[in-house]
Amino acid sequence: MGDTTTKVTLAADMHGLLVELFPLCRSLTGPGVRETLKILRREFPGLSIYEVPSGTPVFDWTVPEEWAIREAWVKNSHGEKVIDFCQSNLHVVGYSMPFKGRISFAELRPHLHTLPEQKDVVPYVTSYYQRDWGFCLSHQLFEHLESFGDDAVYDVLIDSSLDDDGVMNFADILLPGESDREILISCYVCHPSLANNELSGPVVAIFLARWLAMLEQRHFTYRIVFVPETIGSLAYIAKHERHLREKVYAAFNLTCVGDDRAWSCVATPKGNTLSDEVACLALRQRSSNFERHSYLARGSDERQYASPGLGIPMVSIMRSRFGDFPEYHNSADNCDFVTPEALEESLACMQSIITGLEYNLTPQVVHKGEPQLGRRNLYPTHSGMIISKDLFYAVWDFLAYADGETDLLRICALTGLSIEDACEAQALLLDKHLVTVARRYRSQAGPLPPASTAGVMYRPNRSFF
Amino acid sequence: MGDTTTKVTLAADMHGLLVELFPLCRSLTGPGVRETLKILRREFPGLSIYEVPSGTPVFDWTVPEEWAIREAWVKNSHGEKVIDFCQSNLHVVGYSMPFKGRISFAELRPHLHTLPEQKDVVPYVTSYYQRDWGFCLSHQLFEHLESFGDDAVYDVLIDSSLDDDGVMNFADILLPGESDREILISCYVCHPSLANNELSGPVVAIFLARWLAMLEQRHFTYRIVFVPETIGSLAYIAKHERHLREKVYAAFNLTCVGDDRAWSCVATPKGNTLSDEVACLALRQRSSNFERHSYLARGSDERQYASPGLGIPMVSIMRSRFGDFPEYHNSADNCDFVTPEALEESLACMQSIITGLEYNLTPQVVHKGEPQLGRRNLYPTHSGMIISKDLFYAVWDFLAYADGETDLLRICALTGLSIEDACEAQALLLDKHLVTVARRYRSQAGPLPPASTAGVMYRPNRSFF
Amino acid sequence: MGDTTTKVTLAADMHGLLVELFPLCRSLTGPGVRETLKILRREFPGLSIYEVPSGTPVFDWTVPEEWAIREAWVKNSHGEKVIDFCQSNLHVVGYSMPFKGRISFAELRPHLHTLPEQKDVVPYVTSYYQRDWGFCLSHQLFEHLESFGDDAVYDVLIDSSLDDDGVMNFADILLPGESDREILISCYVCHPSLANNELSGPVVAIFLARWLAMLEQRHFTYRIVFVPETIGSLAYIAKHERHLREKVYAAFNLTCVGDDRAWSCVATPKGNTLSDEVACLALRQRSSNFERHSYLARGSDERQYASPGLGIPMVSIMRSRFGDFPEYHNSADNCDFVTPEALEESLACMQSIITGLEYNLTPQVVHKGEPQLGRRNLYPTHSGMIISKDLFYAVWDFLAYADGETDLLRICALTGLSIEDACEAQALLLDKHLVTVARRYRSQAGPLPPASTAGVMYRPNRSFF
Repeated sequence: MGDTTTKVTLAADMHGLLVELFPLCRSLTGPGVRETLKILRREFPGLSIYEVPSGTPVFDWTVPEEWAIREAWVKNSHGEKVIDFCQSNLHVVGYSMPFKGRISFAELRPHLHTLPEQKDVVPYVTSYYQRDWGFCLSHQLFEHLESFGDDAVYDVLIDSSLDDDGVMNFADILLPGESDREILISCYVCHPSLANNELSGPVVAIFLARWLAMLEQRHFTYRIVFVPETIGSLAYIAKHERHLREKVYAAFNLTCVGDDRAWSCVATPKGNTLSDEVACLALRQRSSNFERHSYLARGSDERQYASPGLGIPMVSIMRSRFGDFPEYHNSADNCDFVTPEALEESLACMQSIITGLEYNLTPQVVHKGEPQLGRRNLYPTHSGMIISKDLFYAVWDFLAYADGETDLLRICALTGLSIEDACEAQALLLDKHLVTVARRYRSQAGPLPPASTAGVMYRPNRSFF
Repeated sequence: MGDTTTKVTLAADMHGLLVELFPLCRSLTGPGVRETLKILRREFPGLSIYEVPSGTPVFDWTVPEEWAIREAWVKNSHGEKVIDFCQSNLHVVGYSMPFKGRISFAELRPHLHTLPEQKDVVPYVTSYYQRDWGFCLSHQLFEHLESFGDDAVYDVLIDSSLDDDGVMNFADILLPGESDREILISCYVCHPSLANNELSGPVVAIFLARWLAMLEQRHFTYRIVFVPETIGSLAYIAKHERHLREKVYAAFNLTCVGDDRAWSCVATPKGNTLSDEVACLALRQRSSNFERHSYLARGSDERQYASPGLGIPMVSIMRSRFGDFPEYHNSADNCDFVTPEALEESLACMQSIITGLEYNLTPQVVHKGEPQLGRRNLYPTHSGMIISKDLFYAVWDFLAYADGETDLLRICALTGLSIEDACEAQALLLDKHLVTVARRYRSQAGPLPPASTAGVMYRPNRSFF
Repeated sequence: MGDTTTKVTLAADMHGLLVELFPLCRSLTGPGVRETLKILRREFPGLSIYEVPSGTPVFDWTVPEEWAIREAWVKNSHGEKVIDFCQSNLHVVGYSMPFKGRISFAELRPHLHTLPEQKDVVPYVTSYYQRDWGFCLSHQLFEHLESFGDDAVYDVLIDSSLDDDGVMNFADILLPGESDREILISCYVCHPSLANNELSGPVVAIFLARWLAMLEQRHFTYRIVFVPETIGSLAYIAKHERHLREKVYAAFNLTCVGDDRAWSCVATPKGNTLSDEVACLALRQRSSNFERHSYLARGSDERQYASPGLGIPMVSIMRSRFGDFPEYHNSADNCDFVTPEALEESLACMQSIITGLEYNLTPQVVHKGEPQLGRRNLYPTHSGMIISKDLFYAVWDFLAYADGETDLLRICALTGLSIEDACEAQALLLDKHLVTVARRYRSQAGPLPPASTAGVMYRPNRSFF
């Protein structure tokens, strides 16, 4: 990742892409999604865009009509636009039917949506599967309009269309590795101008794809998926069902990875997969009190992938969990709420996860008893050390569990080492011919530390130095 | 259970039966037990009463002589009865030998039993296996008698008999179901006028039998047993040993289920049976801090059924645990200490346990991914919901674990759903053809939440509504 | 262990041996170790002393030259010895090369070692594998010397030798039992005048050997090993590798067992062996908050025996853990820091461990249901008890888990009984023909209570008495 200048550029680049994508009016279908996917393809040319026709049956669902919206407003009797889609695409209820007419405030009122407990923000509302139309506005504005009385008259226009012959779009990136076992990463592209709960995911995913593409070697094959939530992920799964169920080794959903307030995840239904283990390890090293939510707190596409009928071991990776921050699903979830640094940290978290999976080998010590680290410059003397104290302990603890049965991720769990420190120790010990390694696949997690104390690892009072 | 009027009647009916049974002088044997069992048979005619002769060997024990008592008193020199069995059958030590004579207070003293630390109550004392006679009285009265000096003279009468040719009685109710696997419920009928630590058990058991008899369908066969504690349960087990060891699927001892202070249970020796699991679930939904005692705290007939030589998976269900309330084994354990509401709540708790066992099917989702709940009126829209929010979450969480491997009770443990809510969700999902079910038997509990946090289930901040 | 007089003598005898051994200048090799081992052989004639030549390869290591030191001092310009090996053998860095010369303080300074944060103590420093020489002194003295300036001149003598043709010594005691399965106990003899972190181990080990030798019957074979740390234990293991790996059933390292501040242990790498279980039980009964350190806190010969290449299930038994007390590795670790009582308590702890292993049988109740304890004088009546209340509960709880599957140590873990109380209950129940027993070997620990609450066993509110 290079020097500070580069890192600043990386964080800024990520945030810049988010800002560019922000104004597009995404929904389950329509031109906003297509334009979003094209910009993502510009950023990573290996991205492939697909379409599936409206009306296609997908498991228990049907791909909806393609929705497009061109213009929408409410004008008062002076002809002033009091609500205008041009100012924010949140102002129109997603999948609103076309409407044009002059109506009283009493007639308009049932079509207006506000958040009375957060008066100055515009809520995000959709009505995908029930034909309706409506506007979203701040409760402040609503109260202002209400003050003119129920008889006040408004001109309303929603210039939208719902096309039976339309399509739903989604995209993926495939990066082959030595093994056809796949690491699946999914994110969604169906929310309009929402920054954290939408764009943070695709932005981190695209930059992760770039990083993966530049790796000299990939053991696993990587599949990065960009879909409208729910119906999009279902359509994607339906298209590749047998393949995904056979090949996916670990899976992660990226959502709300752009704020800097917390680290959290939603576990798989039983919380006992390798995806759970590696996610916990990567989060633990970032925050001693990261939140590990059970599957009861699910709310994004892990609901589809990890559902009992499919069983793909997907963990959702988040900063603040969807629904746990006041900006969730309203106009406060904007480009200021997402910070460049948080995007880059989330990218780094995903890199930890992938590093952990790529280097999850099972080491075995070569020597009986402790090897003589001193003559390999891996041990301190009273006159100072050749390797850093931290690296010494990483090497020493790694060796203590390199029993030919315990893999690198288990060693991290047992010793409290970060994934990166364990990888460095493993590489150094391989280089010094002090361990041999084998790759063993597993689907089950080892015992995870309890969520609440996950970061409170026992670090003994070391007695050497 | 019907409307409020009926419920009041139920609670009152239960308490009424307890009040009727209270004055009878029960013991391991004798007319008090027989009369008690006859009243219980009047309440549930399907109850069968048995007898086993005194002297019958039962495992390591022998059925004792039949004890009967007609009259017992201590009169002072004025001929006044200062202690009188007619006032409370607690006044005589259980299994007292006959005695008649004029003796000094010094001679009487070793035969008097009091509770010095609770001066105003009469303790409950027995001497089943060591020939003795004695009286129990309040420490207040004892001090009063003591004030007349050691030389004061008393006429003492205990008109009792110990009959070698007598019998010990017990009873059971058998309610056959589709399966010959049995749910065993046991309670005891050997204490004299003690309300919570005796009669609460048989009263709840009889009303449970009525409820079970009225069920349209029973999967399991039910065996409800009324025995004198220890020797009675041993005799009952000896009579049916092979059958019980082969057929009992889950077992519960009902004791101290009439006070309203707590919910608790005594686990099986290793705490790892299906009985433990379903009991914990039913208690958890009633109190977030119910007490799950280990088998070290045993003290009732679980000591026999669950003993290592028999291994019947019995859990004792209690409100306050025997020994943990000051009214235990003394005259304060009276009909006022037991409340009608507590009796009815305990009945409901047993109904939860039985409901959990009867409907403990293993559901499997029909669809891959989440089913479209909206078009089945099982999902909220922004304009309101068709089903209640609680039922929606029950349905939604139930579906998330309906993987064909996890049964209803495990789903309750994993999701925090009550047994009743899970059953309602299962029934609704079956009705909508969203799950299929199979019945799988198991004897082992899944992992139980730790006792101290059993009720502190993670309930996520739901983000939908 | 007899009456009080004997006990006082025992504690005093143990401390007396420690005081005798204290002044000897031990190191990895040399006359100090030999003399130490000879004194230990005087105390236990069955001890065998071995030697291995310098230069012998041992796994990844090589036995070092034999080091001897006769004289060492620093004289100031007045000819006064300001540092003198004769006063404390800690004053010379272990394995110092010979040196003689007149040098300035500036030249001397890099060869002086102090503890600036503990100004009045002399640190313990070695340089086994890097050729060097040096002196250790209090920081107070160092500051005094420093006050004369860098140009002050000192005569320095280190009359030592490093002999390529030397040997390294170690010793063992073998006490055969009925079984050739072995209990291994190891301690080290390579530190100079350090009392707790050295001599407490060999002293407890020798008195343990005496006790073992006097037992009427030993089921296991006992191997007690006295070695220089690290290279000594490696050499010992190398000599007996196959035998140790095949025969060692449980293993304990004795270190820092002479202070009275704490009880602690270092677990095996995964903390899941029978050695871990029995050690935890013996420590738990001595202190409800004993410290169970993970293998991350290792620091003594458990680092070799339990290393992943060897896998001998060794737990280190300690009072205060090495490195956790301020006297560690400096002149404050003297004969006053170690108390006679602590030595005797540590011996008793090892006796608990051995008793637990010797009597770890698997009991099975003879009777179904509870046996009638009353007619065997094992049950209280209202007129008093024949056996003590504690023994009654021990017997009663022991019986409750005597299911033919659970061995004595597991019963201790489940019931909170001490090893000795469980053994007494087992013996009594065997005597009364209430249980039968079988010996079953196992290498894995049952579930251990969590370290932090290990001593907070649930003791129910007993309701009998």
